[in-house]
Parts: sequence; C-alpha cells; structure tokens
Amino acid sequence: MNDSYLNFVNSPFGARLARSLGLPKPEVLQRYRADRPEFDGLIAIGAGREPHLLDALANLVTSIGMTSVAHESAGLWVPLANRHGLLTGRFEAAESGSQGKLGALLFDASGIEDSSQLEPLHGFFHDTLRSLGKCGRIVVLGRPPEACASPRQWTAQRALEGLTRSLGKEARRGITANLVYVEQGAENGIEATFRFFLSPRSAYVSGQVVRIGIRAGAAASPAFDWNQPLAGRRAVVTGAARGIGASIASVLAAQGAHVIGIDIPSARDALDSTMRQLNGTALAFDIAAPEAPAQIAAALDEQGVDIVVHNAGITKDKTIAKMTDAAWQSVIDINLSAQERIDDALLAAGILRDGGRIIGVSSISGIAGNPGQTNYATSKAGVIGRVQSMAPHLRARGITINAVAPGFIETQMTAKIPLTIREAGRRMNSMSQGGQPVDVAQTIAWLAHPGSAGVSGQIVRVCGQSLIGA
Amino acid sequence: MNDSYLNFVNSPFGARLARSLGLPKPEVLQRYRADRPEFDGLIAIGAGREPHLLDALANLVTSIGMTSVAHESAGLWVPLANRHGLLTGRFEAAESGSQGKLGALLFDASGIEDSSQLEPLHGFFHDTLRSLGKCGRIVVLGRPPEACASPRQWTAQRALEGLTRSLGKEARRGITANLVYVEQGAENGIEATFRFFLSPRSAYVSGQVVRIGIRAGAAASPAFDWNQPLAGRRAVVTGAARGIGASIASVLAAQGAHVIGIDIPSARDALDSTMRQLNGTALAFDIAAPEAPAQIAAALDEQGVDIVVHNAGITKDKTIAKMTDAAWQSVIDINLSAQERIDDALLAAGILRDGGRIIGVSSISGIAGNPGQTNYATSKAGVIGRVQSMAPHLRARGITINAVAPGFIETQMTAKIPLTIREAGRRMNSMSQGGQPVDVAQTIAWLAHPGSAGVSGQIVRVCGQSLIGA
Repeated sequence: MNDSYLNFVNSPFGARLARSLGLPKPEVLQRYRADRPEFDGLIAIGAGREPHLLDALANLVTSIGMTSVAHESAGLWVPLANRHGLLTGRFEAAESGSQGKLGALLFDASGIEDSSQLEPLHGFFHDTLRSLGKCGRIVVLGRPPEACASPRQWTAQRALEGLTRSLGKEARRGITANLVYVEQGAENGIEATFRFFLSPRSAYVSGQVVRIGIRAGAAASPAFDWNQPLAGRRAVVTGAARGIGASIASVLAAQGAHVIGIDIPSARDALDSTMRQLNGTALAFDIAAPEAPAQIAAALDEQGVDIVVHNAGITKDKTIAKMTDAAWQSVIDINLSAQERIDDALLAAGILRDGGRIIGVSSISGIAGNPGQTNYATSKAGVIGRVQSMAPHLRARGITINAVAPGFIETQMTAKIPLTIREAGRRMNSMSQGGQPVDVAQTIAWLAHPGSAGVSGQIVRVCGQSLIGA
Repeated sequence: MNDSYLNFVNSPFGARLARSLGLPKPEVLQRYRADRPEFDGLIAIGAGREPHLLDALANLVTSIGMTSVAHESAGLWVPLANRHGLLTGRFEAAESGSQGKLGALLFDASGIEDSSQLEPLHGFFHDTLRSLGKCGRIVVLGRPPEACASPRQWTAQRALEGLTRSLGKEARRGITANLVYVEQGAENGIEATFRFFLSPRSAYVSGQVVRIGIRAGAAASPAFDWNQPLAGRRAVVTGAARGIGASIASVLAAQGAHVIGIDIPSARDALDSTMRQLNGTALAFDIAAPEAPAQIAAALDEQGVDIVVHNAGITKDKTIAKMTDAAWQSVIDINLSAQERIDDALLAAGILRDGGRIIGVSSISGIAGNPGQTNYATSKAGVIGRVQSMAPHLRARGITINAVAPGFIETQMTAKIPLTIREAGRRMNSMSQGGQPVDVAQTIAWLAHPGSAGVSGQIVRVCGQSLIGA
C-alpha cells in the first residue's frame, strides 16, 4: 500500500542521496484531484503528410480549453486553430528556458501511407521531447492498420507502435506515451478517450494501443455532462467491499453513477460501509454460487443496469505440480466462468440496457503468464477471450465490452509479497513504481463513459508500461 | 558470443558454488546435431473432452518414431495408437524413479468448448510436469479462438494462452512450452510445425502461440524428403556475410537449399567465404540503393527464387532528442522500406515463385519498444505490419509471409553491450541465457519448410520466453 522508497527519494535528503548513488528516482505521479485543473499547460501539435485528424483535435483542444503550439511539421494547425478561435503559437525549438514548458505532445500520423513518410515523427519528437514537463502526455494518432487500403499503409501505421512504446520507455519523468488508432468515420467520437489520455486520470497508463471505432448501436449517443458523465447511470461492481473494487465504486460514484456493490456475504460489513459512503446499494452474494446470476438479475430487474464491472477475483498460487484440483477450479470459476454466467443472465433478460458497458479485469499474468499462477493466468487470459469474442455480438445493441489488465498495483495483496520480489515488480516499468487502485478505477471509468461508445473489444493495461509482457 | 557464466555453473565446481550461493543455474540447451537422434524419449498424451486432433497426433508420432504413453485424460489414445500400430502405454503418476523420463507433453485441448471444461489441463500437467526431462517439450493444441462458433468456446480456447505461458515460466530446466492453434480442416498440415516444436531445433523458442491454417494456393503441396526438405529450393538471404545471416544461410543449405547470399560490397570477402563453404552464390549489393530491387530481380530472374529471408538490418541507437535525421532515416530505410521495395519487385515480376516463402526479421524491440531505439523499434514494428498486411494478399499464390522476432541472441553485436546490461538481457527469460544465431536460423528454416504452407502472417519470437514484451 505504501512505497516508502518513492517517498524517500522525493524528500530533499533522499533525492540528494539517490543522485549521489545513481539510484532510480521515480516521479511522484500527478493524479486527478477535483480541486485542481484537469487540463493544464501547452499542447504541442505535430503531423505527418496530409493529416486527417487535426480538425477533431481542434474541437478537442477547444473543449478542454488548452493552449496549443504548432510544430513546423503541422503547418496546417495555425490557420485551423485560428478558425476555431483557439489561442495558438508556433513551437520554438528547445533553447534555453523552454525545458518542461509543454504539457502534452500530440502527433497526427493518420495521413502516413508509406514507411518512407515516417520521418516527421522523428523531427517532431526530436525537437519537442525535452520540452515536455514532468508527468507530460504523448499521444500518437493513426489509422487502424488492419483497416488500411494498402499493405504499405498498414505497415507504416503498424510501425507507429514501435515508436510510441520506445518513447514511453525513453521519456521517464512520469511521462506517458500512448497510441490511438482512429477509424475513418470515428473522428467525432474521440473526445472521451483523448480527455482520458491527456488527463492526470491516466497517470499509470502508458505504452498502450487503443482503437476508436465507429460508434455502434441504433440509439443516439445520450447527452451527458463532462463533469458528471455517469449521472443517471446504474453501475454494478463485483468485489466492491475493499481494495480496487471499492476504488472503482468510488470513482464511478464521483462521476455520478448509482453504484450497486456486490461482494461475498463474509465481507458484508465492509461492503455496507463502502456503499453507504457512496449512497450506493450493497448486495451480498457469492457470485460463484449457481443461483447467483438469477439472484443478481432479480435484484437489478426493476431498474436495469448500464455498467457491469467484473472486478471480483481470487488467487490461489502454487506450482501446478502442487496445485490441488480445488485451487484450480475455484480460481477459474470465480475469475472467469462466473462472469460468463452473470453476463449471459443479464443480457438474456435485457437487464443490461442497450448502450451499456461491460468491463472485465484481466491481468498482466493473463497476458504474459506467471509461474505459480497457471490457474490465475488461465482465467485472466480467458477474460481477454471473453472481451474479444463478445464485442462483435454486443455491437448491434450498442453495448461495449473491454477489460483492464493491471500490472503491479499497491494493494493489501501486493503488500504481502516478499520485499525483494515486490521491489522488482514495482520498479520494472516506465514509471519505476507500482500503480494505485485509483489508476485502475479511472481507466474503468473512461471505458464506462458514454463518450467511449467507439471503444470495444479492447484490453488496456494499467501497468505503467511494465517491461513484462507476452 | 560466449556466456561464460553458463559454462561456469555447468562445470562441477561452478555447479556446487551456484547451488551453495542460490545462484540461477541455466541449463545447457540441447540443440540439433546431425549425429544425434532428433526425436527421443517418451511423449505423454493428454486430452480434454472430445479431442479432435488425436488422429493427426498419431500420424505425427508414427512418422517421427517416438513412443507414447497416455495420461488418464486421454482415454481414446490407446485404442487409436493401437490402430496406428504404435507402441504405447499408460502414464503412471510420478512415483519414485519416473522423474525425467518423459521427453514431451502434448495436450489436445481442441474439444474444449467452455471455461468449465478446462480442468483436464490441470490434471494432466499436475501429474506429468515433474516427469518431464531436461530440455523437454510442452505443446498445447487448440482451435484458433477467432474461428470458434460461440463466445464461450472462443473464451476457453483463448484461456489456453495463459496456461501455456505460465507453464513455460514455471518449468525451467530448458523446457519449452508453446501453444499451437490448428484450424478446422488443417489437421493434415501440422507435421512440419510439430516436428519443429518437438525437436532440439526449437531450443530457444518458448511461450509462443502459433496458428496453423488451411494451406493456401492452387498448387498441390510439393513432395519433399524430411531429411532434406529444401532440396531443389533457391533461397535469398540478405545480410548473409556474418552472424545471424551466415547462420541462416548455413541451416538452409544444410536442409538442401541453394543459398544466394546478399550483403553490402564492403563485406564482399566475408560473403564470398561464407557462400563458398555452402556452395552458394554471393551477390554484393547495397539493398538500400534505389537500383537494388531491379538488380536483385535481374540476378535471380533466370531461375527464380522460392525463399526470401530479409535478415539485413542495422542499429543506430540514440535517444530521440540526440538522434540525427540521417540515423533515423537509414535505419527505417534499410530495416523496412528496402524490404518492401525488394519484395514488391520480386512479386511483380513473378521471380518469387508460387508456393514461396518470405521471412522477415523483427525484434523484441519492435514488439516492446526500447529506449534509445525509436528508429529501430519503429522499423521492426513495421516488419510486423508488413507480415500481417501481406499475408492475405499472397494467399492465392500459396506464398506465406512470416517473421521471427529475436530476443537476446549471443552475437558480436550483443558482446559489445556493457556487462551488467548484457547479463540482465541474458537472464531475463525462461532459459536464463541468451540464444544462439542458430536458434533464429532453425526457426526460419521451419517457416521456409514446404510443410509450413499453413503458417502465414505470424510473428514468432526466438527469445527463450523473454520477460520483456508489449
């Protein structure tokens, strides 16, 4: 729960000591606080040939009220920004005093159609990266490779991933770097996703690739308030009594949702207390019980539900030679099969409303595998399959399904890991620290957002760009 | 080039010292040698409900002449093996003396249609893993998730990935674990892939997921000899003078190919020498020169070519703020754009024959990104895009395109890395050691194999299951 090294090296004495010994100095990440402006600092804009997304970016910059500067690669930006009535200037190459003055770097690579056209990416990041401040944001925009008309274009767009991941590892200082592929025709659906990636809410999300597709479903996009986007929505969160689940419930409630928290009967007191603080509803069920899907459906039936977050999960770690059948079965059942049964019950009865959101919780172990976690990794890899398989089925109803995959998150569970292993897990990522439960919760809130209708079938890691992967 | 720690801890004194200090003891990997039997030891067979691939496995086991034992989960195996005239027995749970007697564990999970049916995987590996010998092989067989009829089946099949990757990390002792998804109808095309994964040729390939699809192209599968599968084939290898390229040329030649080695004019002497030893042909071209595609096409025109291996590549590492435009451009051009130009020239002129093979070389950096390698990682991510985008285009002609993605390989290049960084790179994988150039070469030879016609559009890491990933 407490990273004492992070606190120490950010104290005056600790910082001096770390510097003299050459120790890593993880940055104290700036996280969202209601009493601070969410969007701050200058955005530098760069672009490759014939960028297609500058107009959408101008709408975004207008909406969030930031000020932009145009890099020489984005000559079209200044007249466009002027037409939007935006304050804008030109980026001056990093001379004395410019260091740290930028808050975000956005590069529109959507028009790049051939590997021979990738050079402006180098020019832009070469010129601007040193001017990006602590906890700054890098977002590269492209077109989904698999939707490109020619192999050359697909190849060039796919190449952006190597660049973005390298930038994330190179930038340090709490800076995140992510790649957003915007499908042709989805330009008007990017704001919720870009708000997330530019905000302190995404402090621990880096090295990710996200696709924004054309919003599905017949229903028109519901109106919402950017300050209370989940107002009027009902959200079920399993495993909500404590830890990451309680944080998810709290963030969804802060954004206006009525939260129905589910946890096992033995956690009823903690669940009641958590839900009381959020004006939520507590439901004590064992989700793995055969009757649970019907019970949950019955409890939600009258008013239905808009958001389902499958957070409940357990670990029972052992090498497979020592793992009992019961330890295997219970982990698979609670972490995976129970979710399938509950979703199917809510979907069949129409209790999860059209335009709804299903959000699973996978894990870095489900992506990379982990010794001693054959059961857990199997269940969490299954969650990925669940998301990928259900997304096309749910499209017609405007329901999205996604998962987050946490890396090392500071919780009561990880606090029990032996120190040296815990330290390795904490430091082996681009942020050189573990994440907080709120980082997972904020990522889920973005996926639950009414403006995220074009984001489905995706796995987003909340791992500070962990080195560990598949 | 030389892992002195690996040699030391495998000496009698070093082994004692490592044991007393609790140091890691990487296994000396068994690699293919023409003077040793390629397939040896017992294969244990396990299966989930209604397995679909046992018949194909029985053909395989017959062909490679191994002896099998059936785990209780695979009750169908004994009568089936008897019908194939195979020597077979029943696996007896690991009691005294059975440790290390198995050479391979194969589990047919193709019939699993729901997450509630995953339990036999636990039963099989729980019972057998301790009996698997050093440098043993684990292969899990499934159906491609994305081709499954129901979301439940897709989910269960996708879950296999978490299990297989965890087994690879847990097994140690030079054991590899891989997952092969066999498309319905592709059952007769699995032998070349399974020979590779069961052989010492795949010593450094672990934690990988490979799909075998229905063989494309109008032409019938050509006849070949398993001992000289590339006899009569012509193979172009770029960057063939030294290092990994020379190893690729050597392995392809050993399997019967006539190798046309290409390298830059300044490496002509080394190239001539390498090609002379293989009875190959040396072509001194700068592949990045504008006239190179036409020159190469002209040089190959008369007899055409069957296999193209794009091995040539360079690094010019710097953080992006310090990277010159020339360093960016030359890496992108040589590692990516030149391959596009050469392929397109060979394909347009029909010089790459129907049923041919294109094999690119990506990198773990292209998958995960790497600080100081924005240019290299971009080019190597582009290679992945090239493979994915071209595969469907080439299908009608029966041409496959794939890439290998090496991790830490012991070469003259990696020998120059500072010791502590080199040690970290070497040890952070399931084999606790770097790979050898021949490991990359053998993987390429499998992809070049006439029996690999159903393998296309795929990226196979040769990384000993490196921790590092995306």
